[in-house]
Amino acid sequence: MKIAYLGPKGTFTEKIALELFPNDNLISIQPIRNVIQAVESQEANYGIVPIENFYNGEVRETLDALTECKETRITKEKDIKIVHCLGVLPQHSEIKKILSKDQALEQCSQYLCKKYPKATTIATSSTAEAAREIVSKQMIDSAAIAPEQALVSSGLKVLEKDLCPNNKTRFVVLSRESTESTGDDKSLISIHPPIRDKPGVLYNSLKFFSEFQINLESIQSRPDGKKGYIFYVELLGHTRDEKVRNAIDSIKKYMDPSGKHKDTIKILGSYPN
Amino acid sequence: MKIAYLGPKGTFTEKIALELFPNDNLISIQPIRNVIQAVESQEANYGIVPIENFYNGEVRETLDALTECKETRITKEKDIKIVHCLGVLPQHSEIKKILSKDQALEQCSQYLCKKYPKATTIATSSTAEAAREIVSKQMIDSAAIAPEQALVSSGLKVLEKDLCPNNKTRFVVLSRESTESTGDDKSLISIHPPIRDKPGVLYNSLKFFSEFQINLESIQSRPDGKKGYIFYVELLGHTRDEKVRNAIDSIKKYMDPSGKHKDTIKILGSYPN
Repeated sequence: MKIAYLGPKGTFTEKIALELFPNDNLISIQPIRNVIQAVESQEANYGIVPIENFYNGEVRETLDALTECKETRITKEKDIKIVHCLGVLPQHSEIKKILSKDQALEQCSQYLCKKYPKATTIATSSTAEAAREIVSKQMIDSAAIAPEQALVSSGLKVLEKDLCPNNKTRFVVLSRESTESTGDDKSLISIHPPIRDKPGVLYNSLKFFSEFQINLESIQSRPDGKKGYIFYVELLGHTRDEKVRNAIDSIKKYMDPSGKHKDTIKILGSYPN
Repeated sequence: MKIAYLGPKGTFTEKIALELFPNDNLISIQPIRNVIQAVESQEANYGIVPIENFYNGEVRETLDALTECKETRITKEKDIKIVHCLGVLPQHSEIKKILSKDQALEQCSQYLCKKYPKATTIATSSTAEAAREIVSKQMIDSAAIAPEQALVSSGLKVLEKDLCPNNKTRFVVLSRESTESTGDDKSLISIHPPIRDKPGVLYNSLKFFSEFQINLESIQSRPDGKKGYIFYVELLGHTRDEKVRNAIDSIKKYMDPSGKHKDTIKILGSYPN
């Protein structure tokens, strides 16, 4: 089987691909949208992309690209704990610069503000690149944020481990097959109300979930670029479960009584909890 | 006056700082959290940071750092239209690589997937760096995504303009002063329920906004790292307006009848719409 994953090689996404599909043909693809497109166009059987980080938030590229698909759905999710460490040259002086990938710098900002309030942060193309740059330029006044292994293998000394607690990234496995209900599932749906009276629409949609006793895991709103909004709702239950089906049908009827707007609610997938 | 803004120099944040505070002392600070801390600790009178991008979503570092502040509030917001362009060497061949800052690559992913589905994306430390790298390494098979001016001043030819429509970033001006109600304001609040029955809590909170006829602009949920959730709600109205005050008081009483949990609702600011 062909497994498309968000490249480049050596990232957490590859790690998950290797773990879940050890004997398959793994294909590194960039950016996220092309991974999802490879599944949609049947070039790949499965795709693996990030969907949320604890500190950076939801990955809108994944949500947007999934919403545009006709066949591709989330079939599995997997959390990976992200442990960032701080590395320096053994002969380091006072630390004045901190190098890392943008997202890692953001994730560690609370730590950096507390421990190195005067240091300047510098974005690099990857966390591994930050470590390499400090070594190659012999930057004794700088530190890199990267996974422990990347620091050590570049020849840096690890000054501190796990700079941002609770940090994790959620990845999803995509395919064109749909899943069966296991009795303990989650589903991600997008709601794009054709009506633009947002507060009422959101409140009334939540009323249906509440009435059918469906628990919500998370909710995000984003502008649709046309003065309307899209809501992404993750709920407990499978879209084949009767009460979830009933709630979704009720919301559809409430939002689009004429049935003209086919994309009002899209199911982005149901997967084991 | 001292104005702290998210650096480095030459970014959109500096542009806004210059526009709003042309005669003041502008200080470039990184990362976001340090800008906010500079306002909180009275080192700066005002701070300017991004809070949301149309494609990348909310900036959680800004929301988190603001929630931790005692005095610092949003007093103004400003949207900037972000126009990304594609630049190449005049003697370019077929484009196989696209270079830019991570966020810009994400923002342009729909365009790239459509026009250059086979091209690989490569992250650089900034959009300007992408243009410089193509020129310095004479990468004739590569294109950079950057503002038009950065492409042209590096010596690249602009192949296409405005790759991602509707793209804008919202910046906020922070200070320790509170604003007066203008009659047409927005407010951002965080709700951190001490109870963990999330669907009910969110639904019932929205009920209070609905009862007091308060329109919501956006809603985001995020895990708090302790199995609970924080909701960020942007609403129409000033927190000094009677109905907003009443709605917030009602939610507080509903969520924390004993009054033990002081941080259940935090007001991150009220600012003109």
